[in-house]
Amino acid sequence: MDTRTPGGAETLTPLFNPRSVAVIGASSREYTIGNRIIRNLLDMNYSGAVYPVNPKDAEILGKTVYPSVGEIPGPVDLVHIVLKNTLVPGILTQCGEKGVKFCIINTAGFRESGPEGIALEETVVGIAREYGIRLIGPNCQGIINADPAVNAYCNFTFTRQKPGAISIFAQSGGVGEVINNRLCELDEGLRMYVSSGNSCDIRCEDVISYWADDPGTRAIICHVETMADPEGFLRTAEAVSRKKPLLLILPGYTDEGAAAARFHTGGDPSNLSPEGTNAPMPAGNLLFFRGIEEACQAARAFVHLPLPRGNRASVITNTGGAGVICADELIRGGCTLPLPEAEAARELSEILFPEATISNPMDVLATAGPGEYEKALSIMLQCDNVDSVLLNFITPFFVDCDDVARRTVALAKESDKPVVCVIMTDRNLWKDTLAIFREGNVPVYSTPEEGARALAALTRHAVAGT
Amino acid sequence: MDTRTPGGAETLTPLFNPRSVAVIGASSREYTIGNRIIRNLLDMNYSGAVYPVNPKDAEILGKTVYPSVGEIPGPVDLVHIVLKNTLVPGILTQCGEKGVKFCIINTAGFRESGPEGIALEETVVGIAREYGIRLIGPNCQGIINADPAVNAYCNFTFTRQKPGAISIFAQSGGVGEVINNRLCELDEGLRMYVSSGNSCDIRCEDVISYWADDPGTRAIICHVETMADPEGFLRTAEAVSRKKPLLLILPGYTDEGAAAARFHTGGDPSNLSPEGTNAPMPAGNLLFFRGIEEACQAARAFVHLPLPRGNRASVITNTGGAGVICADELIRGGCTLPLPEAEAARELSEILFPEATISNPMDVLATAGPGEYEKALSIMLQCDNVDSVLLNFITPFFVDCDDVARRTVALAKESDKPVVCVIMTDRNLWKDTLAIFREGNVPVYSTPEEGARALAALTRHAVAGT
Repeated sequence: MDTRTPGGAETLTPLFNPRSVAVIGASSREYTIGNRIIRNLLDMNYSGAVYPVNPKDAEILGKTVYPSVGEIPGPVDLVHIVLKNTLVPGILTQCGEKGVKFCIINTAGFRESGPEGIALEETVVGIAREYGIRLIGPNCQGIINADPAVNAYCNFTFTRQKPGAISIFAQSGGVGEVINNRLCELDEGLRMYVSSGNSCDIRCEDVISYWADDPGTRAIICHVETMADPEGFLRTAEAVSRKKPLLLILPGYTDEGAAAARFHTGGDPSNLSPEGTNAPMPAGNLLFFRGIEEACQAARAFVHLPLPRGNRASVITNTGGAGVICADELIRGGCTLPLPEAEAARELSEILFPEATISNPMDVLATAGPGEYEKALSIMLQCDNVDSVLLNFITPFFVDCDDVARRTVALAKESDKPVVCVIMTDRNLWKDTLAIFREGNVPVYSTPEEGARALAALTRHAVAGT
Repeated sequence: MDTRTPGGAETLTPLFNPRSVAVIGASSREYTIGNRIIRNLLDMNYSGAVYPVNPKDAEILGKTVYPSVGEIPGPVDLVHIVLKNTLVPGILTQCGEKGVKFCIINTAGFRESGPEGIALEETVVGIAREYGIRLIGPNCQGIINADPAVNAYCNFTFTRQKPGAISIFAQSGGVGEVINNRLCELDEGLRMYVSSGNSCDIRCEDVISYWADDPGTRAIICHVETMADPEGFLRTAEAVSRKKPLLLILPGYTDEGAAAARFHTGGDPSNLSPEGTNAPMPAGNLLFFRGIEEACQAARAFVHLPLPRGNRASVITNTGGAGVICADELIRGGCTLPLPEAEAARELSEILFPEATISNPMDVLATAGPGEYEKALSIMLQCDNVDSVLLNFITPFFVDCDDVARRTVALAKESDKPVVCVIMTDRNLWKDTLAIFREGNVPVYSTPEEGARALAALTRHAVAGT
């Protein structure tokens, strides 16, 4: 049996929806990984049973401790192993005898640490295959399923979670944490999370294939720095991209970055990033991001906005300078900026100030109020030659900005074209205006380049899918 | 007399340190530009005299109103004109008779609006030259000098200001506002600000040349979208760069962006950005930024950190994935990553955990505590083959992060090499840790790519200057 074949929709279900989680190497000492995982599961109200395992204690955080996995009374779907690397093969055999389905090996000291570690990792994989156990790790954080019906926080880190629609795969736990944390700051919710370290068995390909068929996942952020099979990864990524937006961050494209990746997760860098000089295959229609921030910002657009039907964007702005920046970024990102059709231009000339620029970008001027903004947005959304709108709004003190926000949100919600909003403002003084967008579920961007890059990503994904 | 020659250190002093400011077109109506400028000057405690001018009112916001500029009793260094475009020539003549030194023409409807506007702008420039008045604008916001001894907020916008060391030139007022606002959010102070719109007289070149000799300016952010003389701009920019870090944002490099820039500020796009396909001259050693956010983040490093003596960077991290991203970004930004010298490597091997990676990036592991971090940083700062350190720190729950912060700040402050700190954390849970960096005047970055790009900018500037 080749357990490395990417799984179908069923394969990983017990991993993300375990009926029970055992922690082998559970600890009563605070500030240890074997304590923190249990605390996280309890704090997050995990829906299943929690079984601490160690030979010493009777109880940890109010939970009965079992001396070994074999002595746990009920079935065990998922196990964390946090013991020393050399103890892992024996423990894994016990898990196999117990009928455990999935193991997260948090412990380090495997492939990334040299020849002995490589041999140990091979032994561990062999035992897992013998018993049909699927592995996450070693040298990893674990998984999270933030679905409120499950709340499986099988991870020793700290990031708060809010249920949502973005799933994160990050080979590096640190990078995964930063992505998760940044999404929290941006008030975006998490769906599922995997940080798989050395990825000796379950790999990125398996996880993203599973999420491609998960109805709760609207966008996937995927960070990989080493991969066993770059061409296979590309094929999987392309298949996943046809079902879900897949936002790729693939560092290690310089020689120095690649060397660091080898030390870190012990494999070969992919060299798939378009930033890399030796990329063996063209990037195709995949979405690559150079940084964490850019990927997080784009993911927000995929969660909240419909996809455009084409690459023709219209920019509406009350400050010309932002329009110039948007134009550059949209063109560079593969969009076009068609001029308003004759009939639309005529209508616009009747409602906008005479000094307004009826072009694309359209500058409605800083004096434009709720009426001008509403009509301009409404006309552009109805144009046949417009697939998406990027709306830039700097909040002037002499305009009823809350009303602009209310009308924008109303139009954006009823349109089947995406409206990406850039709100250039002081977050403290225009708090109420921003709250209207947030409550209306319309993501706002702070700078024109950020909004334009998010719309370009939305467009690239949508156009690639046609 | 050619008033367009870039000014020396003295030339613009009365603009930024006016003894008095008159607002021609002052208004008693709230939410008008002619009211807001006066309110801003009073709110910000401007040190000089404020003279509202209009033929109707006796008093505005407690200040005596004068019917014309000629009737103001004292000398007038700086005038705002907020009246209709066709009235500007007559008003400017009155200013000339009064002996006014500088005029900010906020009014739009000049070069950017077509042939009549071009002619009107030429008339206005002619009158200004006749009387030796220097002009900011037309079609602009104005200027700010945030020096607490002056507090000249000659601008109709809203951004709070804190005195600091970054000066901002932005042709677009909207872009200038976003930059200013973002720096406020980042708790960075402003030195001086100019948004000059059509720039019919005083241009970017004049302003940045003045700031190059301003002891209070440590870094200049400069946004220009159209310029009369790109080659002259480049020469000035290179001269300024030899004195001060000059962070350039030059949009309008696509055909569509260029067209938008022509509508907006009525000139020709520069095509100087390295992003542009038609850039006529190589970028040389100038610092170009593709976005507002990236420029703001780099400016912070220039304000708070010493310059490196060379391009050899050392990365210390407790999470390998961040190290890979840093390595990529530093190499791409022109840095090198030398391996630790033999003696340093030996010392490190004695103090770090055996599983740590003694390389560059150096992975001290998540379990590294204050002692390990302090020693690793101290050793790298003392290495002859290291010019700068990028320190990545994800805040583990089992480490005394406050102590790591205290020791890092202490070492960073006593070193003459820059230490760029990336702190990957939850801002709410690790508030105290972040406060230690803030109080220690050490800028922190949230993502590895952001910190690495800032260090790369610091390095490019420093190396270009040698």
